[in-house]
Amino acid sequence: MEYYSKQISDLIGELSSLPGVGSKSAQRIAFHILNMPKDRANSLANAISSARENVKLCKTCFTLTDQEVCPICSSNKRNKKVIMVVEDTRDLVAYEKVGKYDGVYHVLNGTMNPMQGIGPNDIRLKELFERLEGDVDEVIIATNSTTEGEATAMYISKLIKPTGIKVSRIASGVPVGGDLECIDEVTLLRALEGRKEL
Amino acid sequence: MEYYSKQISDLIGELSSLPGVGSKSAQRIAFHILNMPKDRANSLANAISSARENVKLCKTCFTLTDQEVCPICSSNKRNKKVIMVVEDTRDLVAYEKVGKYDGVYHVLNGTMNPMQGIGPNDIRLKELFERLEGDVDEVIIATNSTTEGEATAMYISKLIKPTGIKVSRIASGVPVGGDLECIDEVTLLRALEGRKEL
Repeated sequence: MEYYSKQISDLIGELSSLPGVGSKSAQRIAFHILNMPKDRANSLANAISSARENVKLCKTCFTLTDQEVCPICSSNKRNKKVIMVVEDTRDLVAYEKVGKYDGVYHVLNGTMNPMQGIGPNDIRLKELFERLEGDVDEVIIATNSTTEGEATAMYISKLIKPTGIKVSRIASGVPVGGDLECIDEVTLLRALEGRKEL
Repeated sequence: MEYYSKQISDLIGELSSLPGVGSKSAQRIAFHILNMPKDRANSLANAISSARENVKLCKTCFTLTDQEVCPICSSNKRNKKVIMVVEDTRDLVAYEKVGKYDGVYHVLNGTMNPMQGIGPNDIRLKELFERLEGDVDEVIIATNSTTEGEATAMYISKLIKPTGIKVSRIASGVPVGGDLECIDEVTLLRALEGRKEL
C-alpha cells in the first residue's frame, strides 16, 4: 500500500478488512468513493457510524433494531404465543421475507460452540426462558442446520420439554450444512410447514 | 429492505451502491459493521469521509494524493524528462509496483469517449501539453488497450509528433505466462504484428 498516499491507503486498508472484500475490490471501492460527490461519501460514512451508534438489540427478542422494542414485537398483529428461535437477525429477516409466519422471534445472537468456548450462557437462552414464563404455546427452533445449530436446538428442546410447552424444529427440507439466509423462500416455507414436534 | 429497521436498511442501501457489492454482500457487510466495536466502525466511517475530503489531484501530474504535489513529482530521484501518460491513479500504481520505471506520470483521469460525450477537453490534455513546454525527452502512452484507450493514444501521439518530442506506446501482445489458446484473437494478432527479430 506504500504506493498510495496515506489517506488513500488507510481507506483501502479499512475496506479490505470487510468480509468478502479482497485487496483488489478494496482498491476499486476506494477509488469509487474518491470519485463520489462529497455529500454521497459523507452519507455513506454517516450511515456506517449512525447505524453502529443507534442500532441495538430489541429488549424482547434481541433482534437488531433502532427502536427499544422492534416492530415485530410491538405489533398487535403478531401471535405472541408462538416464538421462533433463530441464530441472528438475518435469519429472522429470511423468514419475514416468506411472509407466512405470524408469530414472534427470539434471536440467540449465535449458537453454542464448545470449540470456541461459547456455552449456553453466551447466547440469549436465559432471556428465552424468562419469556417462556409468560403465555407461550409453542417454541419453533429454527437454528441453522449445522452441527452447532443442531446441537443448540437439541439443548434448547431438552430444557423446554419439562415445562409442557410444545417444541418443534423446522423440517429438514433445509439442506444439511446450509445457511438459512441463502435458501429460497419456497424451501423455507416447506421447512416451516413440515416442522416436527421434538 | 422493509424487513430491516431504517438505520440498517439505509446502511445496506448505501453499501449495495458500491461497485462489486450486491445485495447479499451488502447485508453481510452491514451486519459485520453492526457487530464491530464502535471505534472500529467510526474509524471506517472517518477513513471514508476524511479521504473524500482531503484527497485531491496532484498539481503537476493529476494523480490522487493528499498533498499539493504527489511524492513522485516532488522526488528528486525521478527523471522529469520522461512522462508516462496513464488513464487513472490505479494504472500509475500498477507501474509503480513494477518498480523499474523512474520517470514521472501524467494522469488523464479518463479517456476520450465520444459515445459518452467525453472529448479532448474533458481529460487532462491541455495540462499535458503545458508540461511538454518544459524540458521533456519522451512521452510514453500507457492508456489501456481498449478501443477508447487506443483512440486516445492515437490522438495524443498525433498532437505530440510535430513538437519533435519522442512518443511511444507500451507494447501490446501475449501476457507473460499466458496460454495462447486462452487469449483473444485481437491480442494474438497484435502479438504477431509486434513480433521482434531474435
